[in-house]
Amino acid sequence: MLFLARMDVQFPAHLSTEDITRLQGLEKEYSQALQEGGRLVSIWRVAGEYANYSVFDVGSNDELHQILSGFPMYPHMKIRVTPLAKHPNSIR
Amino acid sequence: MLFLARMDVQFPAHLSTEDITRLQGLEKEYSQALQEGGRLVSIWRVAGEYANYSVFDVGSNDELHQILSGFPMYPHMKIRVTPLAKHPNSIR
Amino acid sequence: MLFLARMDVQFPAHLSTEDITRLQGLEKEYSQALQEGGRLVSIWRVAGEYANYSVFDVGSNDELHQILSGFPMYPHMKIRVTPLAKHPNSIR
Amino acid sequence: MLFLARMDVQFPAHLSTEDITRLQGLEKEYSQALQEGGRLVSIWRVAGEYANYSVFDVGSNDELHQILSGFPMYPHMKIRVTPLAKHPNSIR
Amino acid sequence: MLFLARMDVQFPAHLSTEDITRLQGLEKEYSQALQEGGRLVSIWRVAGEYANYSVFDVGSNDELHQILSGFPMYPHMKIRVTPLAKHPNSIR
Amino acid sequence: MLFLARMDVQFPAHLSTEDITRLQGLEKEYSQALQEGGRLVSIWRVAGEYANYSVFDVGSNDELHQILSGFPMYPHMKIRVTPLAKHPNSIR
Amino acid sequence: MLFLARMDVQFPAHLSTEDITRLQGLEKEYSQALQEGGRLVSIWRVAGEYANYSVFDVGSNDELHQILSGFPMYPHMKIRVTPLAKHPNSIR
Amino acid sequence: MLFLARMDVQFPAHLSTEDITRLQGLEKEYSQALQEGGRLVSIWRVAGEYANYSVFDVGSNDELHQILSGFPMYPHMKIRVTPLAKHPNSIR
Amino acid sequence: MLFLARMDVQFPAHLSTEDITRLQGLEKEYSQALQEGGRLVSIWRVAGEYANYSVFDVGSNDELHQILSGFPMYPHMKIRVTPLAKHPNSIR
Amino acid sequence: MLFLARMDVQFPAHLSTEDITRLQGLEKEYSQALQEGGRLVSIWRVAGEYANYSVFDVGSNDELHQILSGFPMYPHMKIRVTPLAKHPNSIR
Repeated sequence: MLFLARMDVQFPAHLSTEDITRLQGLEKEYSQALQEGGRLVSIWRVAGEYANYSVFDVGSNDELHQILSGFPMYPHMKIRVTPLAKHPNSIR
Repeated sequence: MLFLARMDVQFPAHLSTEDITRLQGLEKEYSQALQEGGRLVSIWRVAGEYANYSVFDVGSNDELHQILSGFPMYPHMKIRVTPLAKHPNSIR
Repeated sequence: MLFLARMDVQFPAHLSTEDITRLQGLEKEYSQALQEGGRLVSIWRVAGEYANYSVFDVGSNDELHQILSGFPMYPHMKIRVTPLAKHPNSIR
Repeated sequence: MLFLARMDVQFPAHLSTEDITRLQGLEKEYSQALQEGGRLVSIWRVAGEYANYSVFDVGSNDELHQILSGFPMYPHMKIRVTPLAKHPNSIR
Repeated sequence: MLFLARMDVQFPAHLSTEDITRLQGLEKEYSQALQEGGRLVSIWRVAGEYANYSVFDVGSNDELHQILSGFPMYPHMKIRVTPLAKHPNSIR
Repeated sequence: MLFLARMDVQFPAHLSTEDITRLQGLEKEYSQALQEGGRLVSIWRVAGEYANYSVFDVGSNDELHQILSGFPMYPHMKIRVTPLAKHPNSIR
Repeated sequence: MLFLARMDVQFPAHLSTEDITRLQGLEKEYSQALQEGGRLVSIWRVAGEYANYSVFDVGSNDELHQILSGFPMYPHMKIRVTPLAKHPNSIR
Repeated sequence: MLFLARMDVQFPAHLSTEDITRLQGLEKEYSQALQEGGRLVSIWRVAGEYANYSVFDVGSNDELHQILSGFPMYPHMKIRVTPLAKHPNSIR
Repeated sequence: MLFLARMDVQFPAHLSTEDITRLQGLEKEYSQALQEGGRLVSIWRVAGEYANYSVFDVGSNDELHQILSGFPMYPHMKIRVTPLAKHPNSIR
Repeated sequence: MLFLARMDVQFPAHLSTEDITRLQGLEKEYSQALQEGGRLVSIWRVAGEYANYSVFDVGSNDELHQILSGFPMYPHMKIRVTPLAKHPNSIR
């Protein structure tokens, strides 16, 4: 079951460059583990913005929320989720 | 080069059911040809709405516009395009 | 798996009172069958508006879209869906 | 008499992790007492967001405001309330 | 129990001047009966707009919706309702 | 001459609890003096929000601004003003 | 007492060119009489839009609404009014 | 003096294909005359939308409005204008 | 050539009362010099808000930006500019 | 391939005047190198705002994002990108 998420990152002013770098490292690990496990199907950068569009493949809304709220940068992201259904014109 | 498009369909009140059915048939053909040709990579229905999110793989903005404006239902769709770039955390 | 849907009804100007009454009758039947089958858990009127908030319990996004797009008044409704997850403070 | 509330949490940057944990503990107690007393009928997490949709069953607007403004995290929440009425298609 | 309602009127293009005049007459009767009965406490015109702000005093959300949906011009109005509670600084 | 004002309060993060309590005390005095003097006709809490709707009866826009900008919490409020005119259906 | 009004014109599709021309003629007469009488102090076209910003000098909200609702094109205009007060830096 | 304009086209439902084709022909002539005369410096299609961004070089706001309101499709376009100034980093 | 500007002031939390008072003094001088020089034709307070609407008479967009960015409180203002053209109904 | 970008600058409160001046100097160098290299075709100041509209000529979305995210002031800018296609009425 697929969901599209748009995730916008905004760090609070008091975070140090070191904190940010560390968070980004943890984020990368977490994100890549999700991709290798098949839960995170696609992730793209929105050109010109500190934001991404991601497609998740999960079994339930609870699993989706567990995954999203587990992102190391979750407290600094605004996430909007769109549930996706099969399109009648899709050939897949 | 990838673009995400959200396409919302709204038919004018005067369109007959036959016109709509015919347009939907043409749309399906056009959409599936694009998918088979590799230009339309993914198309999903937004759950609960007459709308889709689609991912296009094209060589230029001009090609993208040519493809989008060629949809049989183009005059009845509101389309918003987001240019996508490679995400540093993507494993692909 | 629960989803909250807000559904706003707007009939086109050319629909006759008879058409509207007929649609409302079909809508009631469809809605009540969904409630009896357990798919539509709750439906409330938004006070002062021709709109409702509804809670659906379905197995997948595809099932949700199939149910929503099957409403007799679907072509005349604007629907926005929010996927719901278990809240940590919920006692249920 | 039912009301739907959407509650979005946003903590100010200066709150320590301890303060937040303490607030969350108080919030849970308060929320569960409301549920046990029948005032808070349902509470769901919005998937991917630090937000919830809640259904309250109260006797008046004053009681509703008293309850909402009593949440320990009230100063850090944006709340939007929608008064709900019986829907003619509801079988309850 | 008080509610503030903002009501914006927009007639469809096909309504004749006679239909509009007749609706306005019915609306006036309905509105004044509500005022005399104490349910509609205040009604003001928004300067420069075909809109009003009204304060209703009702016993429940259901009664409020019944009253609002009974307005003769209800099908041609967009209504937004705000539940009001006692203000701690009010001297009444 | 009547004006409806919606006033949303938001204190900056650095204000201490004492400062806030003191401001709220001054606000209450100011508000009640305005009510006793007949300039502030009604004030209601928006259920669930740190906001109010107020009706002012003043002689001019200048007097209205003088009153509003004199609120002790004025620097911490977002105010939106709507000029009200007599409604043709009002029985008052 | 001054008010700024932004007025956006939108004619319904069924109005003939003759109807529009006639309305524009009546509008011009009405507008110029207001200007000569000192009630309409300034009127400017918003560059690129069928809209204007106008400054009215009136004695009350009721007079303002009477003037605005008397415009021949009033049924086809969206008007937003802003009450203006004296600015402390103004030298007039 | 430069202005950026975004122009969105929306034809009313009753316009025939012939009318639209004729308008588009007139529009092209008008647009190209403006370009040849140096008043319309650049015009680009917004990818996926019946809209353009255009840069105009004119001597005054009045000239700009005269040019924009002279477009054959002006009654069917929503135009938003942004006045542009020299940027301190520009090398031109 | 006239422009309407809406200017909303918002001081950052760390500015002291002295800094604000000093800025307001400089602002008054700057504003009044502009008025005396004929560049700032009108300035009005928006009733109830720390904001103004101002009309500027300048020779070019560059001059307008130079004037606006020279306001002592410019870093703390959100400004939106609307280019104004002569209205066909204006008698001036 | 052209893209229009609107870039709005907002510095956090804690940045010193020296930091800002240094950033602006780096920004100028970066911007002018892009202009000399042909990647940044045009850059204009939005009159009255700390914002610009810029036109970029790049080979891909990835190149565009690399350029935009390389701006020294990128962490303090909100950027919105619009992909541009050739307009059928353009004479270039």
